[in-house]
Amino acid sequence: MLEGFFKPKAVAVIGASTQPGKLGYAVLANIIESGYKANLYPINPKANEIYGYKAYASVMDVPEVPDLAVIVIPYNYVPNALRECGEKGIKSVVIISAGFRESGVEGVEREREVIEIAKKYDIRVIGPNVLGIIDTFTPINATFAAGTPPQGNIAFMSQSGALQTAILDWSLASKDLGFSKFVSLGNKADISEVDLMAAWADDPESHVILAYIEGVPDGQEFIKVGREVSRKKPILVLKSGATESGSRAVSSHTGSLAGSEQAYDAAFYQAGVLRLDKLDDMFNCARAFANQPLLEGNRVAIVTNAGGPGILATDTLERLKMELARMERETIQKLEEFLPDAASAANPVDVLGDARSDRFSAALELIAADPNVDAIMCIVTPQAMTEIIETANAVGKLSQRVDKPIFGVFMGEERAKAGEDVLASYGVPNYSFPEHAATAFAAMRDYNVARERPDPEYVHFDVDTEVVREVFAAVREEGRVSVGEAESRKVAEAYGLRLPKNKLASTAEEAVEFANDIGYPVVLKIASPAILHKTDVGGVKVNLNGASDVRDAFDLIVYRAQRYVPDARIWGCLVQEMVSMDGIEVLVGMNRDPQFGPLVTFGLGGILVEVLKDVTFRVAPFGRQDAEEMLDEIRAHEMLRGVRGRPPADREAMVEILLKVGQLVTDFPEIVEMDINPLMVYDSGRGAITLDMRLVLHD
Amino acid sequence: MLEGFFKPKAVAVIGASTQPGKLGYAVLANIIESGYKANLYPINPKANEIYGYKAYASVMDVPEVPDLAVIVIPYNYVPNALRECGEKGIKSVVIISAGFRESGVEGVEREREVIEIAKKYDIRVIGPNVLGIIDTFTPINATFAAGTPPQGNIAFMSQSGALQTAILDWSLASKDLGFSKFVSLGNKADISEVDLMAAWADDPESHVILAYIEGVPDGQEFIKVGREVSRKKPILVLKSGATESGSRAVSSHTGSLAGSEQAYDAAFYQAGVLRLDKLDDMFNCARAFANQPLLEGNRVAIVTNAGGPGILATDTLERLKMELARMERETIQKLEEFLPDAASAANPVDVLGDARSDRFSAALELIAADPNVDAIMCIVTPQAMTEIIETANAVGKLSQRVDKPIFGVFMGEERAKAGEDVLASYGVPNYSFPEHAATAFAAMRDYNVARERPDPEYVHFDVDTEVVREVFAAVREEGRVSVGEAESRKVAEAYGLRLPKNKLASTAEEAVEFANDIGYPVVLKIASPAILHKTDVGGVKVNLNGASDVRDAFDLIVYRAQRYVPDARIWGCLVQEMVSMDGIEVLVGMNRDPQFGPLVTFGLGGILVEVLKDVTFRVAPFGRQDAEEMLDEIRAHEMLRGVRGRPPADREAMVEILLKVGQLVTDFPEIVEMDINPLMVYDSGRGAITLDMRLVLHD
Repeated sequence: MLEGFFKPKAVAVIGASTQPGKLGYAVLANIIESGYKANLYPINPKANEIYGYKAYASVMDVPEVPDLAVIVIPYNYVPNALRECGEKGIKSVVIISAGFRESGVEGVEREREVIEIAKKYDIRVIGPNVLGIIDTFTPINATFAAGTPPQGNIAFMSQSGALQTAILDWSLASKDLGFSKFVSLGNKADISEVDLMAAWADDPESHVILAYIEGVPDGQEFIKVGREVSRKKPILVLKSGATESGSRAVSSHTGSLAGSEQAYDAAFYQAGVLRLDKLDDMFNCARAFANQPLLEGNRVAIVTNAGGPGILATDTLERLKMELARMERETIQKLEEFLPDAASAANPVDVLGDARSDRFSAALELIAADPNVDAIMCIVTPQAMTEIIETANAVGKLSQRVDKPIFGVFMGEERAKAGEDVLASYGVPNYSFPEHAATAFAAMRDYNVARERPDPEYVHFDVDTEVVREVFAAVREEGRVSVGEAESRKVAEAYGLRLPKNKLASTAEEAVEFANDIGYPVVLKIASPAILHKTDVGGVKVNLNGASDVRDAFDLIVYRAQRYVPDARIWGCLVQEMVSMDGIEVLVGMNRDPQFGPLVTFGLGGILVEVLKDVTFRVAPFGRQDAEEMLDEIRAHEMLRGVRGRPPADREAMVEILLKVGQLVTDFPEIVEMDINPLMVYDSGRGAITLDMRLVLHD
Repeated sequence: MLEGFFKPKAVAVIGASTQPGKLGYAVLANIIESGYKANLYPINPKANEIYGYKAYASVMDVPEVPDLAVIVIPYNYVPNALRECGEKGIKSVVIISAGFRESGVEGVEREREVIEIAKKYDIRVIGPNVLGIIDTFTPINATFAAGTPPQGNIAFMSQSGALQTAILDWSLASKDLGFSKFVSLGNKADISEVDLMAAWADDPESHVILAYIEGVPDGQEFIKVGREVSRKKPILVLKSGATESGSRAVSSHTGSLAGSEQAYDAAFYQAGVLRLDKLDDMFNCARAFANQPLLEGNRVAIVTNAGGPGILATDTLERLKMELARMERETIQKLEEFLPDAASAANPVDVLGDARSDRFSAALELIAADPNVDAIMCIVTPQAMTEIIETANAVGKLSQRVDKPIFGVFMGEERAKAGEDVLASYGVPNYSFPEHAATAFAAMRDYNVARERPDPEYVHFDVDTEVVREVFAAVREEGRVSVGEAESRKVAEAYGLRLPKNKLASTAEEAVEFANDIGYPVVLKIASPAILHKTDVGGVKVNLNGASDVRDAFDLIVYRAQRYVPDARIWGCLVQEMVSMDGIEVLVGMNRDPQFGPLVTFGLGGILVEVLKDVTFRVAPFGRQDAEEMLDEIRAHEMLRGVRGRPPADREAMVEILLKVGQLVTDFPEIVEMDINPLMVYDSGRGAITLDMRLVLHD
């Protein structure tokens, strides 16, 4: 896919220049210097020949139809150039030129025009405002960057061209950072990270996909494509802008809990995409995936000639919830046979400071053969007896025979570098710090988990969408966006959620009558579209045991509501079955994220949800497994399992409600916020009951 | 202090050897090669001369009394050599030899012997089992390491000699990692990290103290000395072994919450010591302190020629709770005057990818002059127009005129290295990644906070220690360690804690009688030394409203207790005032940490404390400010401030109880565990009441 960009048989460079210092010169020079072997057509009306290539005034004049055109001309000439590409039949265009959406209102308009032209001619566009694209296997470097990165199996895309220049600079000095693709995304007017992930899914030259992005325009598509592609190869993403969020106005609990970062975290998890939050972590992890076999499991063995770094590695592994491998007794016995007395044969295996390469090698062989070891970290500090190069050779040779990831941690600089070079020649990544190696192992474990995670098992409940449609229409008709309690109840019932029996009483006498029907004790709650947080205005009275209680409560609640919100429309009071409070209060909510759509929340209810924000998220639609995982992801998850002799809460009921809410908010995209808070969940088998539900529609 | 070690006027090397490859050869060679200028005496009975220095058979034969002796001989000869040092009058000895505590039971015995000899002769010892010590200013390198690190103002100590070899190797390749002292702590048989901190506090050659340690033997002393020294210079500690903890048997809530890591975190904070948990963070931060002025405040300005890295820096700064500086309107206007339209004049200031050094320089000048800017990060990606060296010169020159910390983030390798070298010549640290620079700024902010934190204001309450002494004696007399409820009550009352009225009834009739006295409603609780978690065995009945309720409850509780713990000694039931439950339940507890002593805990009470572990810690004794901080450190701290219309809880009452508990556990070191759970805290001004208190004494 997207072969026109990466494997073009003929390329036109529109704006190719004869003047060094111009971007059009740099791009052409890079294409030539990167060794591009097929036809190249510089387009420049003022030149006859550039770099020995015949130049043309327009793509229209080129004697064949190029697969790819690269546009490096001032923005005002871009629309016409693109139109000519279309007329010529060119289907892949990289627009390097800047001056579009990134440069303000007029730029936005220009970009819109460009996209219209592209659509008209069925042209795919990378850019505008990009560094360009590189495929090291074709090979072609159609960028104005200062060089071509080494070949390797990392396919990299970046929304920041400047960051790419730094990465290019690193890769030129690195032994194990090589790229298959190196693409600048720019304004993503057409081709986005989703297109590239899809295009690279089956590319045999790319073993790992790396992306620096600042936003995901089509979140649902990202999740879908990410899930498919991540089955085939790891996708590592550094998403910046974590703190932009700021000032969205929200009125529900869920809204205040769910920032855009939570949506990204949930979506990346659902997509099987590994999210990293530091640049060095991204590269440290990429080097692991690029050079070593995948990790199956999470049990790491450490071999070290220094205790301290071994402990630091252990600390980090445990912090990242990796396991220290427990080796077979036989392995340990064999290690003890040849290790000195002061050594440690248990993991982390300390071969001592005076270990030469033979001792390292013997230990590594035994450890690699142990069935309880999934991965190996070999830590080498440069001590007096240490044989850096020989030890690196031993690690390297082992890695060629063993199908488990092996990392070197050759510490130090002057002496360690030599080891690093040897390791790189075997495809073993070296890390300067044990913590970095541990982080890379954890990313490999995360990928293993993501890859083995089954596709979501979507559940469809038989619901009455017609009722909901009518309720929302009625709300709209009154010019409201906030759905009242009685209305919400209809919605909930239509989706099979259990609620306490209740009736809306408009007078105190009616309230008494309904209470007699429902049976004592009852609860009275203010019913007014203007009052969202009922308890805040004293709008709830519980445990009312007889007619006079009900009458008094009605009058008091209505009086308070009028005082609190003088203009409020007050329907009266809901008379409600007093439900058993011996369950656990949880919150199920939804907030519509601008990128990813419906973001469903689960957490403990009550005041604690606001204070502790102990909640977890999924983008809907999600499957049964997601709903089950959500219950275990909150910090207080043990509460649901039963603590201090309490029986466990009804998990199946919670899962079902999460799935039903997921279905509801998917069925009705007009729902922008929703809270079920609290949902009272009883002991296993006794179900759950929705005590309060709020819905807000979009304007 | 410890001048004998670091500024010796004469040194004896016991075990100096003529054979390359031997440690005794390497140490002597290092002393000579490092340029040591005063008298040097090789001690070796088999040699007449080593390296041109006259050799002696014993220190006894040396013509003067050396300040320092370095012992590098097999362990079995060490005691005698040390004795000779004592006889000779040598007061400072480094024992490099291994084979002591680190090597098992016999080694422990040998180490004990060595320490006895040292004490007898009033000798201070570094080691045994060390790499040695270096002072780059004297200069003297009395180690067997492969070289001498560059001179600088970082005083470094390490409990891992192997780690030091790696650090030495790094420093040799680094431009801004220089050391004043470089000391291996080894077994810390005598001189520990505390002695070295104290010795380096007033050392003008050392601006920052760096330590890698695996444990702190005398925790209270560490806090005391740390607090004094950290007022004078930053102390950065990497403490490994975070996950060793494991399997301490604990019976209280507090015990299960308070691991040794929590104790270290609390103690380091109280000592003003900055704890880092990664090796690269430690060096990144050390380079900042070593080269730049201290940071006053937390407002960082970013100047960058690339948007992406600017966002990454911002993300990390906000994650670390640093502030993005908000510059004066005037500054922004002046920036706008010369920056291109597409640039961003607000922080992060994006000077765009085509910025040459003059644009960087002009922007930096304005930003540095803004009074709202405390620190500057200058990010430079190597783009086509970028003038790496000139820009580095601009940053460097600015840093020499401005008393604010300035860091470079010259990204990339090949091209960026040149900038790094220029920056280093001005003492400006360069970081490869913006996240690292942000982390270093956060450490500087933490140090600023630590340094400005006042000394603890200890509070002494008038208490009755005699009562407590008697209670504990009575408990001991019965062969118990667990203090019963009635006994705990006496202790609590002696320290002025408020408790519900109660009386111990041994029969149901007695219970009714007491209930009549106390007034209904009452609570009954099982009273048995064998039952700690009363609710778990159904040993508590609340809200008993009359005589027959009390009678029934008594019988039921006792029956259940007998069934649950058949052999339990049952004293009867406590009849207790039924206190108002309209407060907030918190936990105040204590657990005795093996390193730091009494570790006092504060958190929300009830089931949530176990599930969420939302607690905070201080090592007692601590001051009023600590107690106040504790209330704000728990995640659910807003609960105490009043949420959803609730008035705030009585902070003063909680502070007082924390201080009283701190006093109690300091007064009585025999208390190993203590829980007040729950402490019911009422609204501000209404105090707090201890509902349940448990005490365990040491065996």
